[in-house]
Amino acid sequence: MSKKGEISLSVIRRLPRYYRFIGELIKEGTVRISSGDLSKKMSLTASQIRQDLNCFGGFGQQGYGYNLIELRQEIGKILGVDKGYKTILIGAGNLGKAIATHMNFSEYGCSLAAIFDSDKQKVGKTAAGITIRDIDDIDEFAEEHKPIIAILCIPKASAQEIADHLVGLGIKAFWNFSHYDLRLDYSDIIVENVHLGDSIMLLSYGITNS
Amino acid sequence: MSKKGEISLSVIRRLPRYYRFIGELIKEGTVRISSGDLSKKMSLTASQIRQDLNCFGGFGQQGYGYNLIELRQEIGKILGVDKGYKTILIGAGNLGKAIATHMNFSEYGCSLAAIFDSDKQKVGKTAAGITIRDIDDIDEFAEEHKPIIAILCIPKASAQEIADHLVGLGIKAFWNFSHYDLRLDYSDIIVENVHLGDSIMLLSYGITNS
Repeated sequence: MSKKGEISLSVIRRLPRYYRFIGELIKEGTVRISSGDLSKKMSLTASQIRQDLNCFGGFGQQGYGYNLIELRQEIGKILGVDKGYKTILIGAGNLGKAIATHMNFSEYGCSLAAIFDSDKQKVGKTAAGITIRDIDDIDEFAEEHKPIIAILCIPKASAQEIADHLVGLGIKAFWNFSHYDLRLDYSDIIVENVHLGDSIMLLSYGITNS
Repeated sequence: MSKKGEISLSVIRRLPRYYRFIGELIKEGTVRISSGDLSKKMSLTASQIRQDLNCFGGFGQQGYGYNLIELRQEIGKILGVDKGYKTILIGAGNLGKAIATHMNFSEYGCSLAAIFDSDKQKVGKTAAGITIRDIDDIDEFAEEHKPIIAILCIPKASAQEIADHLVGLGIKAFWNFSHYDLRLDYSDIIVENVHLGDSIMLLSYGITNS
């Protein structure tokens, strides 16, 4: 029994990590785990874990730990991992092709339906087994297939313009690798900006200040 | 005047983002900005920003806002963006090659010195203008060049073993894309695990629960 309405943003942002860790534990053959043992693996406190997992219903029993399969199913349902949301990728450069190839979209609730690029040299070639389409054909594609997630692997300069256009075509969520924080004036659009540079800079910080 | 010793982990994790936003404002020609205006751009509260930036010294003046060039220099110094830490990349698959090509390492305090792969078919080819070396030659390379950051773009199964070996060769920091949270029993080693799947799942969550 989930109590979705009460889940805070910070708990939500931890959900994929719980889902991933619990998945690994199940693969290793673990059936139940206490909040204390889970806390050691996840670098969270046991009380934080108990508080977080209470949001998803009653899977922990005092002295018995959590039933991992039930817990993973519930978190997966909340995350929507079985939804297969129709996804398009814009920009078939090095990063775009790597994302298309590297990610197991179906594990994350998505299904990669098409790849677009404005470079006519790329159109007709394939990435991850999908034929790269001309960006000029995107309106027609969207009308027929109704994608709702767009992955932006395009230069910063064109990101805002393309994002605005895609919202007009019905895109509801953006996974944005464009080195640019999308500013969308639509309250119902979801954006995850991925800044790989922010992450590697923390290594430089760590070494510099160690 | 920085007060590094007092900076908390959560402020540190926001540093790259401040550095990036301030850089963009400078590019746009902005010289000074108030915490209120910066807060609108960064989706933080003005008081949070004032509190964070106070950690780096006295760049804000009541009524005058922040001197952006000085502030960026100071944050850059704390982050170590001018250090050019010698970096190696392990795994020249799709993702590895995309990371090598896509990232401007010098902006982030790093310098990509070599790429390694265990696949003899890849050895001798190039990625981002760098010749891919045989992983068997890594000990020799490390002894001569003393790299200190390693980027892991390898399958989960081999990540832990390679990471342990690299620590033995003097690697101090890992940027880990291997779908596996490194568990290093060395307190002085820095790890940033990048889980792209966690990020895209938040889109599925958002759509499912909207």
